Amino acid sequence: MTAPSRIEHDAFGPVEIPSDRYWGAQTQRALGLFEVGEERFPTVLIRAFGLQKHAAARANVQCGALAPELAPAIEKAAIELHEGKWNDHFPLTIWQTGSGTQTNMNANEVIANRANELLGQPLGTRAPVHPNDHVNRSQSSNDSFPTVMHVAAAIEVNGRLRPALDELRSALAERSHAFADVLKVARTHLMDAVPMTMGQTFGTFERQLAHALARIDDALPRLLILPQGGTAAGTGLNAPAGFDSFFCATLTETTGLSFVPNAHKFEGMAAHDALVELSGALNTIATSLLKIANDMRFLASGPRCGLGELLIPDDGLTSSIMPGKRNPTIAEVLVQACFQVIGNHQTITIANASGNFELNVAKPVLVYNLLQSLRVLADSSALFARRFVRGIEVDREQLATNLDRSLLAVTALNPVLGYDRVAQITATALRERITPRAAAIALGFLDGDEYGRLVDPAKLVAVNISKR
Amino acid sequence: MTAPSRIEHDAFGPVEIPSDRYWGAQTQRALGLFEVGEERFPTVLIRAFGLQKHAAARANVQCGALAPELAPAIEKAAIELHEGKWNDHFPLTIWQTGSGTQTNMNANEVIANRANELLGQPLGTRAPVHPNDHVNRSQSSNDSFPTVMHVAAAIEVNGRLRPALDELRSALAERSHAFADVLKVARTHLMDAVPMTMGQTFGTFERQLAHALARIDDALPRLLILPQGGTAAGTGLNAPAGFDSFFCATLTETTGLSFVPNAHKFEGMAAHDALVELSGALNTIATSLLKIANDMRFLASGPRCGLGELLIPDDGLTSSIMPGKRNPTIAEVLVQACFQVIGNHQTITIANASGNFELNVAKPVLVYNLLQSLRVLADSSALFARRFVRGIEVDREQLATNLDRSLLAVTALNPVLGYDRVAQITATALRERITPRAAAIALGFLDGDEYGRLVDPAKLVAVNISKR
Amino acid sequence: MTAPSRIEHDAFGPVEIPSDRYWGAQTQRALGLFEVGEERFPTVLIRAFGLQKHAAARANVQCGALAPELAPAIEKAAIELHEGKWNDHFPLTIWQTGSGTQTNMNANEVIANRANELLGQPLGTRAPVHPNDHVNRSQSSNDSFPTVMHVAAAIEVNGRLRPALDELRSALAERSHAFADVLKVARTHLMDAVPMTMGQTFGTFERQLAHALARIDDALPRLLILPQGGTAAGTGLNAPAGFDSFFCATLTETTGLSFVPNAHKFEGMAAHDALVELSGALNTIATSLLKIANDMRFLASGPRCGLGELLIPDDGLTSSIMPGKRNPTIAEVLVQACFQVIGNHQTITIANASGNFELNVAKPVLVYNLLQSLRVLADSSALFARRFVRGIEVDREQLATNLDRSLLAVTALNPVLGYDRVAQITATALRERITPRAAAIALGFLDGDEYGRLVDPAKLVAVNISKR
Amino acid sequence: MTAPSRIEHDAFGPVEIPSDRYWGAQTQRALGLFEVGEERFPTVLIRAFGLQKHAAARANVQCGALAPELAPAIEKAAIELHEGKWNDHFPLTIWQTGSGTQTNMNANEVIANRANELLGQPLGTRAPVHPNDHVNRSQSSNDSFPTVMHVAAAIEVNGRLRPALDELRSALAERSHAFADVLKVARTHLMDAVPMTMGQTFGTFERQLAHALARIDDALPRLLILPQGGTAAGTGLNAPAGFDSFFCATLTETTGLSFVPNAHKFEGMAAHDALVELSGALNTIATSLLKIANDMRFLASGPRCGLGELLIPDDGLTSSIMPGKRNPTIAEVLVQACFQVIGNHQTITIANASGNFELNVAKPVLVYNLLQSLRVLADSSALFARRFVRGIEVDREQLATNLDRSLLAVTALNPVLGYDRVAQITATALRERITPRAAAIALGFLDGDEYGRLVDPAKLVAVNISKR
Repeated sequence: MTAPSRIEHDAFGPVEIPSDRYWGAQTQRALGLFEVGEERFPTVLIRAFGLQKHAAARANVQCGALAPELAPAIEKAAIELHEGKWNDHFPLTIWQTGSGTQTNMNANEVIANRANELLGQPLGTRAPVHPNDHVNRSQSSNDSFPTVMHVAAAIEVNGRLRPALDELRSALAERSHAFADVLKVARTHLMDAVPMTMGQTFGTFERQLAHALARIDDALPRLLILPQGGTAAGTGLNAPAGFDSFFCATLTETTGLSFVPNAHKFEGMAAHDALVELSGALNTIATSLLKIANDMRFLASGPRCGLGELLIPDDGLTSSIMPGKRNPTIAEVLVQACFQVIGNHQTITIANASGNFELNVAKPVLVYNLLQSLRVLADSSALFARRFVRGIEVDREQLATNLDRSLLAVTALNPVLGYDRVAQITATALRERITPRAAAIALGFLDGDEYGRLVDPAKLVAVNISKR
Repeated sequence: MTAPSRIEHDAFGPVEIPSDRYWGAQTQRALGLFEVGEERFPTVLIRAFGLQKHAAARANVQCGALAPELAPAIEKAAIELHEGKWNDHFPLTIWQTGSGTQTNMNANEVIANRANELLGQPLGTRAPVHPNDHVNRSQSSNDSFPTVMHVAAAIEVNGRLRPALDELRSALAERSHAFADVLKVARTHLMDAVPMTMGQTFGTFERQLAHALARIDDALPRLLILPQGGTAAGTGLNAPAGFDSFFCATLTETTGLSFVPNAHKFEGMAAHDALVELSGALNTIATSLLKIANDMRFLASGPRCGLGELLIPDDGLTSSIMPGKRNPTIAEVLVQACFQVIGNHQTITIANASGNFELNVAKPVLVYNLLQSLRVLADSSALFARRFVRGIEVDREQLATNLDRSLLAVTALNPVLGYDRVAQITATALRERITPRAAAIALGFLDGDEYGRLVDPAKLVAVNISKR
Repeated sequence: MTAPSRIEHDAFGPVEIPSDRYWGAQTQRALGLFEVGEERFPTVLIRAFGLQKHAAARANVQCGALAPELAPAIEKAAIELHEGKWNDHFPLTIWQTGSGTQTNMNANEVIANRANELLGQPLGTRAPVHPNDHVNRSQSSNDSFPTVMHVAAAIEVNGRLRPALDELRSALAERSHAFADVLKVARTHLMDAVPMTMGQTFGTFERQLAHALARIDDALPRLLILPQGGTAAGTGLNAPAGFDSFFCATLTETTGLSFVPNAHKFEGMAAHDALVELSGALNTIATSLLKIANDMRFLASGPRCGLGELLIPDDGLTSSIMPGKRNPTIAEVLVQACFQVIGNHQTITIANASGNFELNVAKPVLVYNLLQSLRVLADSSALFARRFVRGIEVDREQLATNLDRSLLAVTALNPVLGYDRVAQITATALRERITPRAAAIALGFLDGDEYGRLVDPAKLVAVNISKR
Repeated sequence: MTAPSRIEHDAFGPVEIPSDRYWGAQTQRALGLFEVGEERFPTVLIRAFGLQKHAAARANVQCGALAPELAPAIEKAAIELHEGKWNDHFPLTIWQTGSGTQTNMNANEVIANRANELLGQPLGTRAPVHPNDHVNRSQSSNDSFPTVMHVAAAIEVNGRLRPALDELRSALAERSHAFADVLKVARTHLMDAVPMTMGQTFGTFERQLAHALARIDDALPRLLILPQGGTAAGTGLNAPAGFDSFFCATLTETTGLSFVPNAHKFEGMAAHDALVELSGALNTIATSLLKIANDMRFLASGPRCGLGELLIPDDGLTSSIMPGKRNPTIAEVLVQACFQVIGNHQTITIANASGNFELNVAKPVLVYNLLQSLRVLADSSALFARRFVRGIEVDREQLATNLDRSLLAVTALNPVLGYDRVAQITATALRERITPRAAAIALGFLDGDEYGRLVDPAKLVAVNISKR
């Protein structure tokens, strides 16, 4: 027994569709064709289509291009789409034509069917609201889909990534203050170097996040430029004058983001440089976060045979064979998310590099990767801030032991003894397995008091901080 | 009103779990912790865990490490897992600890609960079957998860990718034969070159696919080497002697793939070089397929202002604004899938490059990307073969016109006239907008008969083919 | 017979050095050790070291940290280094320690030897000017090398890349104006679409270049932040208060670029996020340029069997076997340069992602790739502007023929006839191999006059342009 | 005063060339055109051109396509080219047309001029030996350049990379044996795990290298397939029957590598899948080497505040500010080389993915990156083997201390006590900062004797090894 179905027509003939589904003929045809993978657009993109169709309907009314008796139903259906009510009526994967036409048609069809339903018609009538002539009025997939790409990305940047990065920045700043007086040995080339504070370590991370936010902000202006109004190939054919401005005004109102029309609409559909640019910012941020997560993982390594300077919060998870073993799971999530972002950046880069003529036809794969990068980078950063960074403590005992054993605070003697004699001190200390203090005295360069006065980590660090 | 729940304990205390869910405490803890993204392991990986737990239980019995009264229930539950019966009881995303421990524990917990149920106990008892002591017996996540990574990948290579690539190779070969006598102008630097046949064009593609299959086959032996038996960190601690061999024997039996134990188990969990290697093969194949899909798209460009040499099958889809416009949608799917594979390769590469010490902890993101690459490359290749390549025809009229207008068949005159005089012919033909034949005669180098005899595309092509 | 040599000492003992070479013991030791590859830093980096050592010497004097009797000789030697006089005395490849220490020491040693020479001493005396105690005074490789990385990159951005991109933008704008009235058929999915102008095509490219310049400008502020003054690990140990500000003031004076001290110097040596960011901008620009170069190559394909809409300038080069064949060589150079930039971006990304603790130790490979990207992107863009874009012409005859044959200007009828009836027109035209005008009339939708009035490419394009 | 020059002609007119240079008109034209970057082909490629022209001349004679009175001079000149005598007469960078035509013509011109000189003619006569008609006889750049790409790469694989990797494998094996009895604590998730031996650590690395060699060997067969004989576009036009086989026979003789003709020559010039495949192997190997180099760097971190388990050889280099600081410079070289290889792989991938029709026109950038990868991977691996791995020692004291302090050898108790009770032991030990032995006794699970018998690292390790 099969599910009940209806017959719907498009310009190419009849198609059978499950009765309770709101999509139409072009969606159904695509569904039978593109049997590839399982990857779907995240709901933020489907919902952004609701905003786009809503703003387009309103702009059409404002331009006199859509009958006022049809507009309210279309607008209501579009808002429902934005609210997530019709998410289950988007059955296609991202593996479709490179312009995203099938998902644009899916939106047109769902809205047309729903609007007709609101106007008292059964599904599949294509009248009074026609998916192409009315819902897609003054539009093409060529301009609608990239508009939605920008809108969805901007929503994710603004509503998800920026707050998450700011939360992480804030957590790092807080820890930086908490550890402001905690002395430690710096490491260059992984090897022991001169004294510094753990506050400076976390301050470095905080600084990277501050720059990360600036990078996001720099990419935003070009993300807010929309090609809507370009219709076929960017020509604007069949779009009334002023449509683009009306469209952006409504969208700005519904999203709170200051979208503006692209003055050269061809650019916004032939290429997606602005999205590669944004992905480039994410890629840069991923490298920052990898550094930060890795440093914390290594500084917390142990508990007894590692560096052991940081103590990370217990997450209640453990090994399946080594009972009670605690691992930096959350840092590993962040690290993996960053790997994903770096690889996605490559997909996005080659997808944009491969466009031809008036239309880049790698839009679905491009936006899928971009939205995934935004989501996982945001979520893992927020998780890392809340459940990892905020709970980090230091092992003061371990840090003090390290500081006592380290050699290279003697660098402070360079201006007094000259580089070559200081090199003799460290060589002696290493060879004899003694402290540099003992070596300096044994070599007759200084007495213990002088050494203590000149090479006191706490004073060195204090001087360095005050200089800034 | 909340769903009914039960309390389950692990070594760290009680946890509340929905009553109808078969997972246990560690899964539930992870579920509350890792709130990142939506990416899930494909079912092939979950199902491979069923095979792995089944083979492990049997090997344990064979080594005397598992009570014979528990084994049948564990084995039955594991087989159900393999059959897909418990897919819905794996709620975690891939964003978990880098060893895949939570998904391994999820499998242990589901199987333990189900086995206990089969033995007449309610969910959550952890007895008589304990998730760690019995289901995970002689195992660690350290060895089980990478084993499952290999098994799932091998299943996809063998059952999905190889047949798809072979189908594409076969479709290309068929078209190559069909077009064996169709003359065309070769293009180098995108510019008109000497005559060849369309059969040779498709033969080139077929050759690339033949090599693609060889590349897959070369990567397979190292994919079939499994670290199971290495337990914690590769040491084999708590695994009885012979466990690894028994395990591989059972797995070979259930999958038909010749798995063998890794003689140095540390290698199979500290690094995933074999998976980068496989991804490298996919990356190479992606570059082949991009070339093929792009060439076909360009050769089919038009219908009236493009190269127009190939005619592609109608797929029933069209533009949302340009009515009746037909686009090479399926080729665009393949192209986008290839971009994904290339980017995923980068994620996989950096994920493997970043391992430390005895355990690579980017396993989930690594295998997620690898399985996605395998799936979308396979599916899009099969779709391309069936719905695109097999239906391709040539436009003989267009090809003949091009051949007549082309210049560089005169290259055949080099051995007769010398390079410099032939260069004069082409320069004259281009400048005067005449045929090279007319130019050769006008320059007094040859008469028309000689030219016709020496520069006949059909003969040139025939000679070249017979030489091979 | 071997070249004459001298014996020079460092803190670790004697080293034999060719008599006429100005480098010292640490350089010589490195030379005997790192026998890898042939890649060298471009001279812009060596010369930037001259600027850096000059500004450091002056800042040291201003802080009272360098004896005034030594400073003039050091400054003079540093300026000579900047002028390129000592390029041949930097024998090391980039394959050295990851902090760039050996090249920093090479600079210290060359300047020390040269300064001592100016002060009347033979090479190798290390007195009165000592490479570490005086030339490297208040500095470490930890801060000097990344400072030089930023300085060299900023010089290349400002002096080479920006002018080149601007020249290309200008050439594209000029061609856009020249082709403002040239009608053509747009292509989406590589397939014929609606009418547009060739001026719009070049205007799209110009727009991409305008954004490219904005991207560069956005990356610049963070590039101008220098870690100098951080000395060992970022602590500032042994650097006098104010050193960093004095240093940047001098460097700003000598370069004309507004360098500022990094307020958190650890950040500027532990990570090179700012350089990944810049590389990300180059990567984005590379995707733009690939699109542009490829579009031009395809539009100029032929001369007789391609799209043939553009005519490119003759460069005097040809095939080694096909006499007189002309190829788009310069576009191919640009395309290849972009591939290099995209790959380099990956190297730079992973190099930055892999830093640990207080020092990223992939500095040489990172800056080598960045400077290569800047150079080849700049040079190939300038070449493309001058020798390719400026000389491009259109083949008006070919364009007119295409326009006449194309189908989809009928899209303009959508608002009149509705999508479904227009679809019938195109389907009929394609099937019957007739013009859409004939199809529209045959189907009885419009008469010839109406068609001509509603579907006139020149009017359509004019309307669309005026709307903007 | 300018250098003396001669006038040389090609089919397009006169060109002025420095008198003492052996190149000709096409090279000179290219020199004035492609003012981009500084990257040059390594000499291995120039020298491989000598082998290629030599084998072509001989094959021509064997086919009766080259006058026997010209052949000896051409062959002698070609051999000189192979010997490196004319390296300085290849002035072009890699930034040239994408077929490598200018470098092929450079080789043709140098050999023609030199052959004419040997035959008593001045430079520039183009007679009796003509660069196109005789030196390039039966060839095109289309087949010659990719043939040389394969030949140069195969020479580097065989003569440089394979020996270097094998040397590294051998050094690792030697250290693995030396450390066979050295106990250490394994680390998973960077955290302390169960006992193992340092010999196993190095054995893991050795195993990775053994696989690396197998990966190289698997890529070789397709690298040895040459497109020579395909001439223009792969058609074989103007190449006599049998030319390809004669060519490969001679080349096999001169190189000792078993080259074979490509049965479908179009494939060997339209795409470079075999080179992407090889680069993929290098990419995989780079991830292995990164893991190895990083593990060693971390295990050797210290000397007093790091993991400190390994002691690395002194290389005589130090910090410019921290006197006597010793860093793992050579490991950093290897790490950086691997980053380069990974980025180059991306350039190579996109370069191959972007080919069109009968000719991939990214050949110069592709082979430049491939040869660079081969060279730096080989050199840095050899350096790492000789100057780093072979000199590594262990710090037995540090290792013993770690082993004593570690917790998770108690995993051995799982089969005795069950997972949950062992978890209590580790939790107690961690909380109370006591040994797991003390915790086990305190919890009443075991007495000291039992514990000692069941949890003895040396015995555990021995058992595990003997099981294998």
